Amino acid sequence: MRIKAIYERSIALQGNIANAVVDFSKHTVSLVAIVSDQVRNGKTVTGLAFNSIGRFAQGGIMRERMIPRLMQADPTSLLDASGLHFDLSRISANIMRDEKPGGHGDRAGAAAALELAFWDLNAKLADEPAYQHIAKTLEQTPITQGVPVYAAGGYYYPGESSRKLAEELKAYQDLGYRVFKIKIGGAELAEDLSRIETAIKVAGDTGAVAVDANGRFNPSTALAYGKELAAYKLRWYEEPGDPLDYTLLAELGEHYQGSIATGENLFSAADSHNLMRYAGLRPDKDILQMDPGLSYGLTEYQKILALTTAAGFHRTQCIPHGGHLINLHIVTALGLGGCEAYPGVFEPFGGYSTQCRVDNGRVMPSDAPGFGLEQKTELAPHIDHLLGI
Amino acid sequence: MRIKAIYERSIALQGNIANAVVDFSKHTVSLVAIVSDQVRNGKTVTGLAFNSIGRFAQGGIMRERMIPRLMQADPTSLLDASGLHFDLSRISANIMRDEKPGGHGDRAGAAAALELAFWDLNAKLADEPAYQHIAKTLEQTPITQGVPVYAAGGYYYPGESSRKLAEELKAYQDLGYRVFKIKIGGAELAEDLSRIETAIKVAGDTGAVAVDANGRFNPSTALAYGKELAAYKLRWYEEPGDPLDYTLLAELGEHYQGSIATGENLFSAADSHNLMRYAGLRPDKDILQMDPGLSYGLTEYQKILALTTAAGFHRTQCIPHGGHLINLHIVTALGLGGCEAYPGVFEPFGGYSTQCRVDNGRVMPSDAPGFGLEQKTELAPHIDHLLGI
Repeated sequence: MRIKAIYERSIALQGNIANAVVDFSKHTVSLVAIVSDQVRNGKTVTGLAFNSIGRFAQGGIMRERMIPRLMQADPTSLLDASGLHFDLSRISANIMRDEKPGGHGDRAGAAAALELAFWDLNAKLADEPAYQHIAKTLEQTPITQGVPVYAAGGYYYPGESSRKLAEELKAYQDLGYRVFKIKIGGAELAEDLSRIETAIKVAGDTGAVAVDANGRFNPSTALAYGKELAAYKLRWYEEPGDPLDYTLLAELGEHYQGSIATGENLFSAADSHNLMRYAGLRPDKDILQMDPGLSYGLTEYQKILALTTAAGFHRTQCIPHGGHLINLHIVTALGLGGCEAYPGVFEPFGGYSTQCRVDNGRVMPSDAPGFGLEQKTELAPHIDHLLGI
Repeated sequence: MRIKAIYERSIALQGNIANAVVDFSKHTVSLVAIVSDQVRNGKTVTGLAFNSIGRFAQGGIMRERMIPRLMQADPTSLLDASGLHFDLSRISANIMRDEKPGGHGDRAGAAAALELAFWDLNAKLADEPAYQHIAKTLEQTPITQGVPVYAAGGYYYPGESSRKLAEELKAYQDLGYRVFKIKIGGAELAEDLSRIETAIKVAGDTGAVAVDANGRFNPSTALAYGKELAAYKLRWYEEPGDPLDYTLLAELGEHYQGSIATGENLFSAADSHNLMRYAGLRPDKDILQMDPGLSYGLTEYQKILALTTAAGFHRTQCIPHGGHLINLHIVTALGLGGCEAYPGVFEPFGGYSTQCRVDNGRVMPSDAPGFGLEQKTELAPHIDHLLGI
């Protein structure tokens, strides 16, 4: 078995929103296809994936560094002992050949898109959904009754914030969501508290509302917000300051008794190790959001999980950033704590296919082979285009 | 004043060496030109720079994200109050528009190449060497008698290690170098100690020999080497383990009484802040090697210097990674501790032009405007090619 071709294409994210730090309409994502020489049911078996959501496409790094390494490798050196599947440790090592340690940024997304496409390919070779294939390969017991999913959004509506926010969250309820995450820090504290009260009223439970500061607070503002947020007993308080400011997280954790969520902007096991060492996070309450699609893929994410487990965190404390089909399969396979979704934004990558019904706050992958990206109607035309169909 | 065009090109590094972690012959560098609409002495004023040495070219990130941001900006929004120079804070903010915090990797090199080219352009607009222009702009007193420079190399020569190593270092002495850095960790400890003794014999002074482990040791090996190295009172012991493993550095610092050097694989102020907080480095002896050309450029490097100064480190403890003309001007302008050089490798970017004579362990920039990259004979044809000359 060998790789016949690797295709990648940069696709604009339909993020018709801004979070006051960045304008998502400028963001792009790399869609990747690994074309094998294998045929199943008369069709060439092709692995598909993308580098999650919220950063940028990485065509340059893939084309100039990583794809040539994969194409120049001895094909058998990339396979497992049976020769029937690609060996993901070998694939990962090959993608990273001649890369130095440190500097875990854009290349982590480039490597992830490629690595995850091999997981999709392996699952399709076995003719099973990726969550089943991943669970089997990593000797895990997958979740079979659907995983918890929350709706992220909770935007600002200047002038008529409360009414429009309530409408937005009610629309998510109609779609089957029960837990919401809303933005904070884009208005004065008093207005943010009023928005939180609106969200709690719609959700019917303080524990069904999380807030996200998108890293915009300086330490004193982060602490001031924490003081006021504590009384609400929210689901969590996400990314108060710079993602690398572990000292800020440790200070906040000393004063804020609720859950803190962080990790979506840490892209490696080495950075996650420092988060475990220095941020004072509390294994019984804090939430870890590292995203395999931004962090070299599932091989590195297993190392991250080993570190967080060693630090005392149960897997259900891990709720990856990036609400899409790839993370749904990973969360389901590994028994993690849940998934996010940004209903109506971040197309064509964000959200789930109609075959993965969101019901009463849970979502379950379909039985399609691999990650089932072909079933997502918004994404399917881009896949056809990438493959020249 | 406005930008007429920005060109970039990926150029292979002539690194005919491997350091056991990576094969440098596969590495590339981005050469960048910012073409202005200004004319001096009948020639279009063009800023030139590159993203240091030792990582990769970043054409994709520049073409897809950063160059469009610069070209789409209102030209006057990029200038200082006088309108005569580009305002580097504004340039930096523009290059990073819509980029999220965290993930300081490849994009830090892409941003640096562009930002540094604007420093070259500003210096040429003022018709002065970059070191003078940088010192004036940042209100610093430049070093005028040349800065300390050391020769890095000290490779392995299987079978005849000691004799060949002595020959290599003597050749550096003939070129004017007095301090050497040699590799360790590529052989057994006993052989490495014998190589260190050879180097000390050639240098004539234990303080004139540094050793570099290139991040390859696990914590116990790093400590074991530290124990044996202590007796030699070497110039420094560089990058024992993973660059993000601050705990390892702190442990080593508790036992190893000599200088530790690190930082070349940290690419941001946020990461440098964590190095200051957690690595237990000692301001009176340890060496900081953060490299502006891999770290978003000189604007971010000033933030890094502010952090290291606040942590008690004198500027002479800062000896940036990357032995080339850009860092020579920065070290000279800011009064840092010195420069490195890899004589004979890493062409066309590595090392200095003949106008910057290396003499008795010191090197001084020439009087050419900007960084003087045009004077470097190995680089000049690539510049002409980039500019279509």
